[in-house]
Amino acid sequence: MSLLDAAGSEPRVDALRAMRAVEFPLPPGEIRAFRRDARVSLRFPLGPSERLYGLGLNFKTVEQRGTVKELHVDHYGGSDNGRTHAPVPLYVSSAGYAVLIDAPRYITVYAGTAESRDSKHPPPVKDRNSDSSWTAIPLSDAVEALVPAAGTRLFVFAGPTPLDAVRRYNLFSGGGVLPPKWGLGFLQRVPTLYTAEQVLREVDEFAARGYPLDVVGLEPGWQSAAYPGTFMWDPTRFPDAPGFMREMQRRRVAVNLWINPYVSPKAPFYGRLEPLSGSHTVWTGLVPDFTLPETRAVVLDLFRREHLQLGVSGYKIDEVDGYDKWLWPDHAVFPSGLSGDEMRQVYALYLQRATAELFRQRGRRTWGLVRGSNAGAAALPYVIYNDYYSHPDFITALVNSSFIGVLWTPEVRSSKTGEEWLRRMQSVCFSPLAMLNAWADGTKPWSFPEVADAVRDVMRLRLRLLPYLYTAFARYHFQGTPPVRAMPLVEGFAAGRDPKDEFMVGDNLLVAPLFAGETSRTVILPAGKWYDFYTGALAGSGGTITVTPGLERIPLFVADGGIIPLLAGDRRQVPPPNEQADLEVRHYGEADGRFELYDDDGETFGYEQGDFSWTTLTVRRDSSGKLQGESRRPPGGKPFHYRTIRWTMMTTR
Amino acid sequence: MSLLDAAGSEPRVDALRAMRAVEFPLPPGEIRAFRRDARVSLRFPLGPSERLYGLGLNFKTVEQRGTVKELHVDHYGGSDNGRTHAPVPLYVSSAGYAVLIDAPRYITVYAGTAESRDSKHPPPVKDRNSDSSWTAIPLSDAVEALVPAAGTRLFVFAGPTPLDAVRRYNLFSGGGVLPPKWGLGFLQRVPTLYTAEQVLREVDEFAARGYPLDVVGLEPGWQSAAYPGTFMWDPTRFPDAPGFMREMQRRRVAVNLWINPYVSPKAPFYGRLEPLSGSHTVWTGLVPDFTLPETRAVVLDLFRREHLQLGVSGYKIDEVDGYDKWLWPDHAVFPSGLSGDEMRQVYALYLQRATAELFRQRGRRTWGLVRGSNAGAAALPYVIYNDYYSHPDFITALVNSSFIGVLWTPEVRSSKTGEEWLRRMQSVCFSPLAMLNAWADGTKPWSFPEVADAVRDVMRLRLRLLPYLYTAFARYHFQGTPPVRAMPLVEGFAAGRDPKDEFMVGDNLLVAPLFAGETSRTVILPAGKWYDFYTGALAGSGGTITVTPGLERIPLFVADGGIIPLLAGDRRQVPPPNEQADLEVRHYGEADGRFELYDDDGETFGYEQGDFSWTTLTVRRDSSGKLQGESRRPPGGKPFHYRTIRWTMMTTR
Repeated sequence: MSLLDAAGSEPRVDALRAMRAVEFPLPPGEIRAFRRDARVSLRFPLGPSERLYGLGLNFKTVEQRGTVKELHVDHYGGSDNGRTHAPVPLYVSSAGYAVLIDAPRYITVYAGTAESRDSKHPPPVKDRNSDSSWTAIPLSDAVEALVPAAGTRLFVFAGPTPLDAVRRYNLFSGGGVLPPKWGLGFLQRVPTLYTAEQVLREVDEFAARGYPLDVVGLEPGWQSAAYPGTFMWDPTRFPDAPGFMREMQRRRVAVNLWINPYVSPKAPFYGRLEPLSGSHTVWTGLVPDFTLPETRAVVLDLFRREHLQLGVSGYKIDEVDGYDKWLWPDHAVFPSGLSGDEMRQVYALYLQRATAELFRQRGRRTWGLVRGSNAGAAALPYVIYNDYYSHPDFITALVNSSFIGVLWTPEVRSSKTGEEWLRRMQSVCFSPLAMLNAWADGTKPWSFPEVADAVRDVMRLRLRLLPYLYTAFARYHFQGTPPVRAMPLVEGFAAGRDPKDEFMVGDNLLVAPLFAGETSRTVILPAGKWYDFYTGALAGSGGTITVTPGLERIPLFVADGGIIPLLAGDRRQVPPPNEQADLEVRHYGEADGRFELYDDDGETFGYEQGDFSWTTLTVRRDSSGKLQGESRRPPGGKPFHYRTIRWTMMTTR
Repeated sequence: MSLLDAAGSEPRVDALRAMRAVEFPLPPGEIRAFRRDARVSLRFPLGPSERLYGLGLNFKTVEQRGTVKELHVDHYGGSDNGRTHAPVPLYVSSAGYAVLIDAPRYITVYAGTAESRDSKHPPPVKDRNSDSSWTAIPLSDAVEALVPAAGTRLFVFAGPTPLDAVRRYNLFSGGGVLPPKWGLGFLQRVPTLYTAEQVLREVDEFAARGYPLDVVGLEPGWQSAAYPGTFMWDPTRFPDAPGFMREMQRRRVAVNLWINPYVSPKAPFYGRLEPLSGSHTVWTGLVPDFTLPETRAVVLDLFRREHLQLGVSGYKIDEVDGYDKWLWPDHAVFPSGLSGDEMRQVYALYLQRATAELFRQRGRRTWGLVRGSNAGAAALPYVIYNDYYSHPDFITALVNSSFIGVLWTPEVRSSKTGEEWLRRMQSVCFSPLAMLNAWADGTKPWSFPEVADAVRDVMRLRLRLLPYLYTAFARYHFQGTPPVRAMPLVEGFAAGRDPKDEFMVGDNLLVAPLFAGETSRTVILPAGKWYDFYTGALAGSGGTITVTPGLERIPLFVADGGIIPLLAGDRRQVPPPNEQADLEVRHYGEADGRFELYDDDGETFGYEQGDFSWTTLTVRRDSSGKLQGESRRPPGGKPFHYRTIRWTMMTTR
């Protein structure tokens, strides 16, 4: 059992082979492992100026050198101690490599903290009484780790850049997920006890008010009982589930169902799952052992019949993370032989993988939410969320997700003020999943009238960016390049600066959110000239700038020569597969530009059989010195859904 | 290796035999243990209304049912998750028994949280959608635990009351420590780089201003280098250490030395300790393996020569708790064969025990401070402290210390206001160690002029209470009864109320501190009448009262018939062994009273050979109905240091 096995990772060998071959990035003689008393301790060398990233989905810090992590699937509790929704045991070094400790255990990682007496580069001895340079954490020349099991697999991913190391890791995990196009639209989760009628009314109100909506999420009340669940439609709130689903399809709104995996005695498959479940219950519900094929068969058969055949598009898989006092104990025993702690580390991976497979069998992509994950998850069609709800920390999680092959959404639920509401809605629109989760609060995008228009504007901007976002995901899938990127992964970004409140979406868009109470902020730009997304005006040239964007705008910047393709015109929904849409292609700055635009049918797995297109968009100066756009699609590239292209030179008009 | 072995616990068999024999308190057939993969899982039955206390030195909560603890010696980080200075794996049930899991490991305890499928009393299944009584933690009928080792020792301590269970545990640990009398005086820790001259000047200033002072603590600057340390006097700040120590003795002020155990290359015994230390360093210092007799011999020989022979009275043992990123990693290896995590759980116990033995060899009791501890520590002459510094949480720690056989001081360091300063000084004077720790702040008791007199008053009251406090410790030693007591350990206290901000000192004094910003508070009284300590007036009769004591007074209450012996007159220092002091014995309320007053020489271990006295103080009504006091000392009881007794009937004058 390993994490990558649990995730079902199938390395994309061709894509890995296509990357530049480089030397093994560490001196192999300096990697040490020894086993003692059924535990393995590890030591990896570390240079004096290396910075370390990753080691789980952290919410407060980006650089991790000088910390200790006990990597443990759990609800995030407010400190970056290793207990988090995706405690991926992977670190990425600023020196351009990554290390994965692939064991389904609570691994303790000493990220440049443990000081071995046989270190080759021991730190100097200092007297705290007399030396003000004394430090509580002397510089260690190693990452050490303890795996509380008799064995582990180790992987070292070469660079040469940190981004290359991340790409290799993602490709080794199967390549990043390519969501269905509708998954990049707006998702509204409705209050937990809403009836079918209330849901349809809410969908219609989105349309009437002109707010984007592509997916609705139903919360626990869709089930006839929850915590533990029956997985069956509630006959009072959803008396005609097939009819309800048809109405939703007529409105072209996908339906996502909340579940947690714990099985009520009232669930139809309870009896069959009894021998296939763990020694302990959660909220009196069975904990099915999803590592067993027979368990998956029983559960997924019901899911297929009761959900997918009605048109359900995906799941939100809740409570597979923690807290400890809710879930099974570490000494629980499962029919497969796994112990409680092993199961804790892989449970969410198995659920993601099993449900994803269900949709794959029908030839339809899915796109869902999950509260737990771990290593190897890049290819799984799930975005992590939680209810911790600090807006700044949510953005730091978005930054950190990019190191460890997971996706994260800074979901919006409620706010104290219209200002906070707008700031949160702005940033969620630049995340992998633009979602309002109103399960408890009943909020709508227009809940704060004073910012209702600005909220609609940013939701529509998100939708217009579909060609750009979808291409970013295609690069995640085919090349391993994460769609959201921390700045230390960006070429030309000054080493040693690890901002936790700005990030790239795709190659060209730098996002710098503001938080409630702020009217201006600083933004650290990578080298070269950067331009304001909205106006095309020069914003700065490398270094740190201060921006005062006004409440209506989230600061967005594009590098010199950057190209951003958008859907032309205003839209409320992702175009259906049979529509030919119009494009607006924007160019920023003075330099020539080039962008490879991806497209496919947006719904099936045809892209795995070559049914996709890459269109080269270039902007260069003609003989008169004027910037001209050109689009070239190689013969055979299909499908391609864009009819016309309008070129907009944002800076040089 | 077990915790009790590490602590050197020697059960006080006679005292245990003297307790009432009771049945084994749990159905033995319902205690289960099984081993799997070199781990042991445990299950103990739990009744529906039992409340659980203990499970480490917690700072925020008293009742622990419904929690999970990972018991781990560590700095307290702000949540009661098991990481704390004394993570004693003992729980005390309100049903009147206690359970100790005696393994030097990071034990995970599910205190009524894990729900086993074969539970005899499973909680009802509830639907969260429709049932507002649904709860995230259904009532479990067991305490479960995981010991990550192939074996463990288990102890169940019978009652019949919770206090009896605690007493049995303390007696099994060797009985509680009896401090030297001077240890109950006031301790001032001076700024870290103070010179000998500055220390003496400060001592003289205490005398000139009339503030109690019996002990001075020297912080890191007494050493020639610290973090890591040399354990040698600094020749610039202490050019004549023997002379300095003589001056301190002349002033009758004991000297306590700060240390942490990590050894600088500049320490004289560095070379001898190199082969006797662990695989990792702390702040570049060696980590001596104190489980080895040869290590103790090397270290203690220097301590004896350089410290004890000069008259040093004790140590403050710092940084044996955490943080993880400062100490050795869990996979460290020690010459004894212990792993890092095992050593972490016992290191502080070994250091306490080894240094205590050093003083015992000289026939003198010691009294010191330590930042880490664990099970079996009751007999060790150390009080736990930390720098977390929340005043309310410090008091909760004081409450919780009473369940688990450790002592705690809510040390005072600095304050924002005079009010806070006074409130902190008031409560530390009703703790096992009345201490101002000015190592970083340079504060003095009189630092806030507006409360300087009130601070002096409460320090003097502390000193006057010496006969009462010393007796409370004698009962800790001889009978296992903790000197500070949580209210659930008090007879007549209503079950189901677990206040975290009030406690008993000895049998008769209920202490209810106020915190900065409060002018009044509620106090929950045990059954019966309770009287104001200062005035003798009736304060209430059971139930909850509200008091508005004014800034100068910490609320103190005495039960009906309660007797409190005090030193008569005002004092600044604990009386020396050769002095016969005068007593004031106070009686409160209307009922007859009886108090057994303990005395001995206050400095040696003569009490272990029978050199002590118990004097019976009784107050009863004479034929005219007037309360009369009487003192009876059985023949042969010695020593006894009290010359005269003045009886004060506080309520009935």
